[in-house]
Amino acid sequence: MDQLRFDGRVAVVTGAGGGLGKEYALLLASRGAKVVVNDLGGGRDGSGKSTFADAVVKQIKDNGGQAVADYNSVVEGEKIIKTALDNFGRVDILINNAGILRDKSFGKMTEQDWDLIYAVHLKGAYKTTQAAWEIFRKQKYGRIIMTSSNAGIFGNFGQANYSAAKLGLIGLANTLAIEGAKYDIKVNTIVPTAASRLTEDILPPDMFKAMKPDLIAPVVAYMVHESFPDTGAIIDSTLGFGIKAHFVRSEGAPLRKKPTDPVTIESVKENWSKVVNMKNAKHTKQISEVTLDLVEKLQDFEERSKLDGDRESYWSNYSYNAKDLTLYAIGVGASTTNESDLKFLYESHENFAALPTYFILPGMAMESPLVGQAMPPGKHADFTNILHGEQYIEFVGDLPGTEGEFTTRSYVVDVLDKGSSAVAVVNSEIYQNKELLYRTQQHIFVLGQGGFGGPRNSAKATEVAPAPKRAPDAVAEQRTAEDQAALYRLSGDLNPLHIDPNVASISGHSKPILHGLASLGFSARHVLAKYGGNDPANVKALKARFVKPVVPGQTLVTEMWLEGKRVFFQTKTKETGNVVIAGAYIDLKNVVSGGASSAPAQSASSSGPLKSDGLFAKIKQEVDKNQAMAKSVGGIFLYNLTENGKTIKQWTLDLKTPAVYEGAPKSGKADTTLSVSDGDMIEIAAGTLSPQVAYLKGKLKIAGNIMLAQKLGPLLKSEAKL
Amino acid sequence: MDQLRFDGRVAVVTGAGGGLGKEYALLLASRGAKVVVNDLGGGRDGSGKSTFADAVVKQIKDNGGQAVADYNSVVEGEKIIKTALDNFGRVDILINNAGILRDKSFGKMTEQDWDLIYAVHLKGAYKTTQAAWEIFRKQKYGRIIMTSSNAGIFGNFGQANYSAAKLGLIGLANTLAIEGAKYDIKVNTIVPTAASRLTEDILPPDMFKAMKPDLIAPVVAYMVHESFPDTGAIIDSTLGFGIKAHFVRSEGAPLRKKPTDPVTIESVKENWSKVVNMKNAKHTKQISEVTLDLVEKLQDFEERSKLDGDRESYWSNYSYNAKDLTLYAIGVGASTTNESDLKFLYESHENFAALPTYFILPGMAMESPLVGQAMPPGKHADFTNILHGEQYIEFVGDLPGTEGEFTTRSYVVDVLDKGSSAVAVVNSEIYQNKELLYRTQQHIFVLGQGGFGGPRNSAKATEVAPAPKRAPDAVAEQRTAEDQAALYRLSGDLNPLHIDPNVASISGHSKPILHGLASLGFSARHVLAKYGGNDPANVKALKARFVKPVVPGQTLVTEMWLEGKRVFFQTKTKETGNVVIAGAYIDLKNVVSGGASSAPAQSASSSGPLKSDGLFAKIKQEVDKNQAMAKSVGGIFLYNLTENGKTIKQWTLDLKTPAVYEGAPKSGKADTTLSVSDGDMIEIAAGTLSPQVAYLKGKLKIAGNIMLAQKLGPLLKSEAKL
Repeated sequence: MDQLRFDGRVAVVTGAGGGLGKEYALLLASRGAKVVVNDLGGGRDGSGKSTFADAVVKQIKDNGGQAVADYNSVVEGEKIIKTALDNFGRVDILINNAGILRDKSFGKMTEQDWDLIYAVHLKGAYKTTQAAWEIFRKQKYGRIIMTSSNAGIFGNFGQANYSAAKLGLIGLANTLAIEGAKYDIKVNTIVPTAASRLTEDILPPDMFKAMKPDLIAPVVAYMVHESFPDTGAIIDSTLGFGIKAHFVRSEGAPLRKKPTDPVTIESVKENWSKVVNMKNAKHTKQISEVTLDLVEKLQDFEERSKLDGDRESYWSNYSYNAKDLTLYAIGVGASTTNESDLKFLYESHENFAALPTYFILPGMAMESPLVGQAMPPGKHADFTNILHGEQYIEFVGDLPGTEGEFTTRSYVVDVLDKGSSAVAVVNSEIYQNKELLYRTQQHIFVLGQGGFGGPRNSAKATEVAPAPKRAPDAVAEQRTAEDQAALYRLSGDLNPLHIDPNVASISGHSKPILHGLASLGFSARHVLAKYGGNDPANVKALKARFVKPVVPGQTLVTEMWLEGKRVFFQTKTKETGNVVIAGAYIDLKNVVSGGASSAPAQSASSSGPLKSDGLFAKIKQEVDKNQAMAKSVGGIFLYNLTENGKTIKQWTLDLKTPAVYEGAPKSGKADTTLSVSDGDMIEIAAGTLSPQVAYLKGKLKIAGNIMLAQKLGPLLKSEAKL
Repeated sequence: MDQLRFDGRVAVVTGAGGGLGKEYALLLASRGAKVVVNDLGGGRDGSGKSTFADAVVKQIKDNGGQAVADYNSVVEGEKIIKTALDNFGRVDILINNAGILRDKSFGKMTEQDWDLIYAVHLKGAYKTTQAAWEIFRKQKYGRIIMTSSNAGIFGNFGQANYSAAKLGLIGLANTLAIEGAKYDIKVNTIVPTAASRLTEDILPPDMFKAMKPDLIAPVVAYMVHESFPDTGAIIDSTLGFGIKAHFVRSEGAPLRKKPTDPVTIESVKENWSKVVNMKNAKHTKQISEVTLDLVEKLQDFEERSKLDGDRESYWSNYSYNAKDLTLYAIGVGASTTNESDLKFLYESHENFAALPTYFILPGMAMESPLVGQAMPPGKHADFTNILHGEQYIEFVGDLPGTEGEFTTRSYVVDVLDKGSSAVAVVNSEIYQNKELLYRTQQHIFVLGQGGFGGPRNSAKATEVAPAPKRAPDAVAEQRTAEDQAALYRLSGDLNPLHIDPNVASISGHSKPILHGLASLGFSARHVLAKYGGNDPANVKALKARFVKPVVPGQTLVTEMWLEGKRVFFQTKTKETGNVVIAGAYIDLKNVVSGGASSAPAQSASSSGPLKSDGLFAKIKQEVDKNQAMAKSVGGIFLYNLTENGKTIKQWTLDLKTPAVYEGAPKSGKADTTLSVSDGDMIEIAAGTLSPQVAYLKGKLKIAGNIMLAQKLGPLLKSEAKL
């Protein structure tokens, strides 16, 4: 790297007679800066006088640098800035470093102890900074450093005065960073730990001795360099380490059940554990984001309350990715031996998609206490007496993408009395970015908890539909693997009934049984392949009742009847002839008879500007500039930029013509297709995510001529790191 | 919940003539507190006089409460505290709420604007708090509130004075929280957003109107209640929401390559992206933790540098859990049809364990650029021309547990010249909590990159060992599934060669091939079952060379020869007779001939005190108190408390006797065994993790009589939530 220089710059360093300030002054001067070496000449507690600054100036001059001594107090900061102007005609850099200590436990602290610390640290930095501010603003350039302390950030016994002043400086820097932004005035805070009484007792002696100011000076020098990228940052440095600090905020919580409830001291206490739960805390850059975040939280709270009415809903979050989808697909019998299934098993397949039945899982809300809470008095439900009786799923719009985050609202719509058993009907609504994507409904049988005089049926329940009386129009057969349940359970339902011979035996089964949803996944695949062109986007709704258990290793026989766009189906086990899934149907968007076929690739939906658009604009520039080099690679590359696992924009890198443009290749076909999320694309370009790692983690998917993709790297390395 | 009361408490509220302060005063008085209603009687900018405080006092008295007005300035805080003592004889609560605004852009800010804001907000809170401090300390009770602002935390245009003062208050609170801790003095900060000019332009009008002080007052009232648990907390509240804020620090980075290098401005710049990477930022509670963290980072840096010497190592982190182990076990052919394999497939199995070959994966460091960097000039390696040639693994101590985090150091020890190809020999050392657990070595073939005149062999390479010439002592056969590669790749090696027919074809294979490590996993299982009692802890080391590819669906034939404690083996595909793994061996700790057997349960190693020990002590108290109730459950429960997936302490809950004690059941056998990490146990007890959720996520494992475990809940619910 070229030396980072400060030629032509004038720097003011307060408290530069010794310690850190001296190191700053020496280092900046050695790199070409003209330096005002300010020092009041005081001891640690601010008393006494000295000529330290002169000595530092002499040292700088002896080394061929330029410097001038200044003995003004920082509380008359305007005089220090005047020294810079008088001697060097300008000022570019201000390092507020001067400081003293007056440590006392709070009870014993005198008003003078408080005032003196405030004056030197906080007021002094204010005064000096303000004197420089208008100069910086007019010249549209300035670099300011505040010096804070971990004693302020964390508090420290005996330093009430110091910790207040030191955190005040961060508050000042926060606002100045904002006000200075459009004038290229950067205001940052250093939190240095040099060898001091503070650290002497705590650290191993060797480490204490090693805490030298010359390990911190290069950090501050970089922070006041022209090329320094950040403003408003808090950087902790010592011993050759750098650490950044910032505030994060908890997700927080409403302090009442409903927006119409009053907030009381008691309701605050009830919700406190959620308020202070920092698990998903996140950083907010500016106060306007805080407000927006609040607006969003409020709207959420109000919308949820409106949805819920008097009913208690359970809200949960669910996230999934390509690996979850492929694991599930294997779990429900998709196989590479069936070419048209490869798109469910291979995340880089050009038509990679989820099996529609996968989306039943986010609606399960397995962790919710809803069913237990919904039981009538004297009845109870826990996971030892419940059974998954029926399942419904209905997509509102398109099939969700191949990765994403959902918010699920679940609630019990009815509890039915079926005589010996109760049935809880549980609805779930699955949202992504506030948009309702699909609905599910589960019928949960609660064994032995009926007979409470409740209704037998509910208008809110989606009912099964009996299959037509005629012989099936089509039949598909598939054997489940001996380890099908062991495999399927890795998709989330770890109930030991499906793997533990003892638990299965207690429940009256000769061996662990297959999950009902696994069998359903098999049959839904059979229907989709037979009548839906094996295109998962073709499924509109599905309903099924689980009748009897399946033992892993048994062969599932799916019998299908086509009527209009509805495929009725039921599932039997070949070995026993038992019906295991009954009254089931799938409503298709389009019937595609005649067995499986590969669905066409989806085209990208139109989209607003993406973060990576600028990157492609830059690539375009480079390619235009270096046409011969581009042609030496010679392939056509299609970039699918994705969001939530769906392509939202395409860019073509045609290195044959060469040309770079938005959209699919004009020539018709790409040699290599690269799929990557907008965010990951930026990370790759920024170098924080290597393309190799992205590829290995399935974040960057490469289809077509993968060898060609290798050639991209060297070509664009210097510019865009593709 | 019972009403939270303040009877007998005396509260001082500054700036209580209107707005938030008035609400605080009214609410506290309505709950029994005697209140000093302080108000200077100034307008927003501190000018003017009023009798607002009298009006508030009147309102309190009209409602039957007790209050007195006080018109002193907070900069004479001692007078305000005196008012409390004079009128009510004591003071328990101080809410520093008084505040004014003098907003100006920094260039236009006068010194008076700065001084006034400082005086009222920061100095005033200091003065008033200090006057109360010795009283609080002597009575060993006090509740203090500082009032900060998001304008300080984030900065806000035109509020340099205000943001400095407001963050200064947090600094003050930080130290006072520490100094007050042992006197039950709690010092917390409220960040209120009430309707103000600040928010008027940003918020929807409805929301602005809804920002009422009575939504914030209950939060502050709870924060000054006797029962309030926190100190030093920053709580943002408005509109009935509560959010906590605190500082987090980045992992940070050394600012030089080696501890002996100088830190330069350039080396700082080079490492800056790591310094400011907040991805794994974490909160540090106090300054001493910061120091300890630093000591640890430094030691790490120095130890790593010492290990590395002049060599460049690649350090990476790896974490795994029970699901990863079971997915891997299925991927290498473990099956529930083999009873003795269940312990590899079922996370709640009493002997649940990892297959030893799983631990090859953390040593792969697939993302490292090492091999590419190690190539001689003119030669190159990328994932299109490399092949996994040989693999070695050697355990230093015990087999790692069933979940955990590793730190892996990888480095190239030699690059061999094999004529047409190069071979990079890559060592990895896998650490947990700084302890070396095991080593691996990979031989990576780099096709077509030999002939650079390098050595053909290396003393640092662990060599394969040819099988004895005699007929094998034992043979095991197992067919791989058609989808074995599709399944195995979910354990992390997503190379399309193993699933994409096109990529396989380009590489010269008729169809996608199985991962060499998958075949090795099969054969290692065969050896372990035949000669190791199927006890994974029995494996000391393993070495193998990958010779030819396997196609999923082929049958693997493992031929074994026992010599001493070494089992030589090679693997063939039955369909072709080809040797696919050659020169392989496993060194066992103990030879257990005669096929698979179940290994005995490991006993817990002794351990120091755990966080959950206190919890069990409490349970013991409860059980002793309610013996009849305990006996009504009547089972014997064994708790295995785990760390990194290994049991480190056992507690027995014998509800037959009844008795609660450390260690395994004295009666010999537990009815139900519950395994849970020490940390999760605490979370379950604290109610932040429900036992049901813990169970469903595999965090709480229950073996034996699972129905009995259900009975535990109600018994201990009120006390310990088991």
